Amino acid sequence: MPTKRRLANAIRALSMDAVQAANSGHPGMPMGMADAAVALYADHLKHDPSDPHWPDRDRFVLSAGHGSMLAYALLNLSGYAHPTMEEIRHFRQVGSPCAGHPENFLLDGVETTTGPLGQGLATAVGMAIAERHLNAVYGDDLVDHHTYVIAGDGCLMEGINHEAAGLAGHLQLGRLIVLWDDNEITIDGPTDLSRTEDVLARHAAMGWSTHECDGMNADSVSKAIAEAKTTYKPSIIRCRTTIGFGAPNKQGTAATHGAPLGDEEIAAAREELGWDAEPFVIPDDVREAWTEIGQRSQDAKKSWEERLAGHSKASEFKDRIDGKHDRRWQGKLFDELIANPQKMATRKASQIVLDAINEAVPSTIGGSADLTGSNNTKAGGIEPLTASNYGGRYIYYGIREFGMAAAMNGMALHGGVLPYGGTFLVFADYSRPAIRLGALMGAKVVHVMTHDSIGLGEDGPTHQPVEHLQSLRAMPGLTVYRPADAVETAEAWADALAADGPGLIALSRQGLPQVRLEKHEDNLVAKGAYRLKAAKNDRKVILIATGSEVGLAMEVAGRLEEDGIGADVVSMPSWEKFAAQPQAYRDDILPDVQPSEILRVSIEAGTTFGWSDITMKNGLNIGIDRFGASAPAPDLFEKFGFTADAIIPQILERLNND
Amino acid sequence: MPTKRRLANAIRALSMDAVQAANSGHPGMPMGMADAAVALYADHLKHDPSDPHWPDRDRFVLSAGHGSMLAYALLNLSGYAHPTMEEIRHFRQVGSPCAGHPENFLLDGVETTTGPLGQGLATAVGMAIAERHLNAVYGDDLVDHHTYVIAGDGCLMEGINHEAAGLAGHLQLGRLIVLWDDNEITIDGPTDLSRTEDVLARHAAMGWSTHECDGMNADSVSKAIAEAKTTYKPSIIRCRTTIGFGAPNKQGTAATHGAPLGDEEIAAAREELGWDAEPFVIPDDVREAWTEIGQRSQDAKKSWEERLAGHSKASEFKDRIDGKHDRRWQGKLFDELIANPQKMATRKASQIVLDAINEAVPSTIGGSADLTGSNNTKAGGIEPLTASNYGGRYIYYGIREFGMAAAMNGMALHGGVLPYGGTFLVFADYSRPAIRLGALMGAKVVHVMTHDSIGLGEDGPTHQPVEHLQSLRAMPGLTVYRPADAVETAEAWADALAADGPGLIALSRQGLPQVRLEKHEDNLVAKGAYRLKAAKNDRKVILIATGSEVGLAMEVAGRLEEDGIGADVVSMPSWEKFAAQPQAYRDDILPDVQPSEILRVSIEAGTTFGWSDITMKNGLNIGIDRFGASAPAPDLFEKFGFTADAIIPQILERLNND
Repeated sequence: MPTKRRLANAIRALSMDAVQAANSGHPGMPMGMADAAVALYADHLKHDPSDPHWPDRDRFVLSAGHGSMLAYALLNLSGYAHPTMEEIRHFRQVGSPCAGHPENFLLDGVETTTGPLGQGLATAVGMAIAERHLNAVYGDDLVDHHTYVIAGDGCLMEGINHEAAGLAGHLQLGRLIVLWDDNEITIDGPTDLSRTEDVLARHAAMGWSTHECDGMNADSVSKAIAEAKTTYKPSIIRCRTTIGFGAPNKQGTAATHGAPLGDEEIAAAREELGWDAEPFVIPDDVREAWTEIGQRSQDAKKSWEERLAGHSKASEFKDRIDGKHDRRWQGKLFDELIANPQKMATRKASQIVLDAINEAVPSTIGGSADLTGSNNTKAGGIEPLTASNYGGRYIYYGIREFGMAAAMNGMALHGGVLPYGGTFLVFADYSRPAIRLGALMGAKVVHVMTHDSIGLGEDGPTHQPVEHLQSLRAMPGLTVYRPADAVETAEAWADALAADGPGLIALSRQGLPQVRLEKHEDNLVAKGAYRLKAAKNDRKVILIATGSEVGLAMEVAGRLEEDGIGADVVSMPSWEKFAAQPQAYRDDILPDVQPSEILRVSIEAGTTFGWSDITMKNGLNIGIDRFGASAPAPDLFEKFGFTADAIIPQILERLNND
Repeated sequence: MPTKRRLANAIRALSMDAVQAANSGHPGMPMGMADAAVALYADHLKHDPSDPHWPDRDRFVLSAGHGSMLAYALLNLSGYAHPTMEEIRHFRQVGSPCAGHPENFLLDGVETTTGPLGQGLATAVGMAIAERHLNAVYGDDLVDHHTYVIAGDGCLMEGINHEAAGLAGHLQLGRLIVLWDDNEITIDGPTDLSRTEDVLARHAAMGWSTHECDGMNADSVSKAIAEAKTTYKPSIIRCRTTIGFGAPNKQGTAATHGAPLGDEEIAAAREELGWDAEPFVIPDDVREAWTEIGQRSQDAKKSWEERLAGHSKASEFKDRIDGKHDRRWQGKLFDELIANPQKMATRKASQIVLDAINEAVPSTIGGSADLTGSNNTKAGGIEPLTASNYGGRYIYYGIREFGMAAAMNGMALHGGVLPYGGTFLVFADYSRPAIRLGALMGAKVVHVMTHDSIGLGEDGPTHQPVEHLQSLRAMPGLTVYRPADAVETAEAWADALAADGPGLIALSRQGLPQVRLEKHEDNLVAKGAYRLKAAKNDRKVILIATGSEVGLAMEVAGRLEEDGIGADVVSMPSWEKFAAQPQAYRDDILPDVQPSEILRVSIEAGTTFGWSDITMKNGLNIGIDRFGASAPAPDLFEKFGFTADAIIPQILERLNND
């Protein structure tokens, strides 16, 4: 039986060799944390390499994602089907799942994509929340696992760390255990270039349990993890490590952080570590021992399956893990909305929709970043999820937009829950890095973003989104919805819940007239854009509007028709959904003719940037290309030209000139 | 002489009355912190209402910007020309400088726009850095002041707080004093709904001095401030307060936070507070006492002016405060770059430019969020700015992108320094809220954003910006530059330093051929776009490219010309600058003709979203509308179609079909 150090050296060798082969990457971190990783895998981690999606597995998150070779080495050594050694050889090359940073969509066993620092840990907080929640619902028999994180100094310096640590401490997520790779090195040099902080004391102040160990000694790490498991608080374990351990001339310095060691230093490291195998070759004794480690949880897995088989809620549990949920809430709600048209803010409509959803779909977990009464996210009688009631389904996230979004990603990735959370649309900027990471991962979450334009009024330009809709539409992988009324709001929610990836629903603060008055078989929002009103006179204009401006477009169209000018009104709640429609549908809604034949006019209370993608050059884009102002909303719409009186002359001028 | 409580009650009355008149706003915070504000203004704050821009004034930042009526009341009462009582009466209305949140561009004495929580404090950190730096350069005689902040629980919960507090503690900014409005209330309710934290212990762990006082007693607050002034560490003073103090039925609850109290409660509060003046009327005794408070620093001001008059560096100091700086570095550098054309990454070119700038312009303060060697921001021999050497000009910001950007805003607003800071372009998402706030305020900073496309290669999609250029171009008030070579990089820097507001320079990781080979009298980047190459054959195509794709466009154009197809190449380093050119210039560069006459083709290694604004409908937009991948950069450019071989057939097909 090889020593634990020898098992760790296998990680070190693979890491330095793969980085060298790629001539790119970060050997220092995997080499420094290899012993700690052995401790975690050999003594603690509950998982089954032959069934990476086992719902009751422990989650392991490499928050310091640049150390990706640590993850790849661990997956290969412990017996996952991927990455193969061939794939590791092609680290960071086209076609290899061994990307520069771990990507959850490329490899089973990578629980979340990491790389943007701090987010792995913040995502893990969400996983730990989901675990406690499902434990409360289904009991220890089905859900009883830990979430382990390896975090570096970068993860702990980023602002998101404060939000994640605050949330975890507040919710007493005792199943969350963070191994801090305390190597005292960042890219620029020693950590004391930029940080003077007692990291453990800070965590203690936030309700964490703090531990210390010798990170270069697997038994010391293992003992600390065992201790951490005994507390009801989240734990941080300070692992004192040497970055690039084993590289005799470079270890302990920033030189090992983000560059290959070079052939000479690698040879010296082999010597130092007593590792004489060829690159990418794992000696049999090591391979056997690691395989055994990978099979540690076979018995646990077997008994879990037996418990599941006998469990009264087995089928419900499996459906939740598979993301299946009841969609029957839709029919009744749509009937009611059509039957009783009313002027309503879409954020209010969203609350009504959530009343129905939360009653019908028990997997939702809602929340807000301290704007519950504004976002209207607490609906359907759900109770707070707290340290004393993990079975609750509403999280008071506090003033932590980024932490909320990252935690939602983590819950979605954990599975079994369907998270949504609210803030103002303008604060999408605060949570944007997590929105993007969720979009990359296809994490199924719904961002509820209210107060979606200058229509929020008096709070002024810091609180008024202008460029946000476009900046979010520009992001791959995210579906942005901006519904025009209560019916569209319900359709947007229905579509978002049916989607594979994340959605963002932009909602008005102010009341909006109901524009959808008839029942449709199809979900029209799911088409992205549709003809809300067809021209009566000869069609000269197509008005394309979203959200709160659809009502205005209807008013403009009505007045144009009075002047004998035919005008379609196209409601366009989702650019992304419209772009995904068949060409024939898109050509029907927006015929491919010259502006001189049919003038396209966009109306949206946001920047016109990018709207020419829809209206064509020489189309007319009505928007606001400056920061807003503080005043009551009606005054602002007047001031910024969002009135029929201001818009119609511009249309007429364009029609007369063409 | 009225009591301090009575002076505070004037703030309370104005706050509740103005919010009531607007039927919108936040009375609770100003009413809770009125006594603390009196302590600050009556006993500590050094300022001159008749000269709001006095360079050696103390800075006061209301980080909890929703309590804006506190700021407006203090400015009015202490004798600033604005806001007038009439302007306060029109709180939150069109035309009043009393916006929902304090806007530094609307009122002298508002040192920074606040509202997006946490940023006021983080901006103040930058002000405190600028103060210590200028103190080191010009001595106590000219620069010797404090930065005071009022922060609420939201400011302390946001992630940015961690970055700001970490930076301030590390740099031992003893002149920074934060008054924490510890009212135990957030919008959603009691703070313990979402936070379990020993706030002071957390700050102590980060190198802060911590203090406590009775926030409802001006003398207690004043004593704590006096204590805080004696330490070399930044200070946080816990002011135990009652939100909405004075409103007998609502105080101490979230009900006072963000809504008018109502006429009945206001009447009850008047009774409770013993305040019998009419709304918006300040009794003479109170007005007189406040006027006297406003004039406390007259003597200090006078002796400062005398010291300045006799100071050997008076003229240099004034120039720096006025933002004047030497531009003579440009001539020599441009000559050298033209004389020695070479392939070079623009991030490397930026370093060469910064070598020249930092030598010629002593007001620059550079830095990087732990990517110094990648951003190439440490140039021109500048030394680190540290707690033991505030005279240094390079800040190791640590892994704190948002904190860096906010601190840069604060330095710029303080005046006398010209901050720039680096990170990867993809992490513009992390700092985006501060980029936006700087754009709103017109804060003159330069964001240096390297690794600006899939050209960064192996680090993969989490590190490859795709939508970032467009999402930043969509932001009002920010000028985005993406230079194509070393010459354009120098021009971009020259233009950014000459601008009034913030600039963002996107730079390549990879080497780029020099495309600018001749000397020009004009700064061509300042025109936003220009014809780099004119068609030789009959012009059928205009290729429009930015940054690293300009060289590719030149290659494509050359091959089209070989086939007899005339092709202009337009380099477009800045959309914003181009949009600001006269129509005639824009029509010359991009003639307003149909795509069938001249096809416009955009080439940029980012999303095509929005590019139709430039290329017209049926133009051809070459871009990448998905997340990137991990591989060497040349492989990625090949994979995603950024080669002449991939692009030319698309152009030919379009030309043949039209």
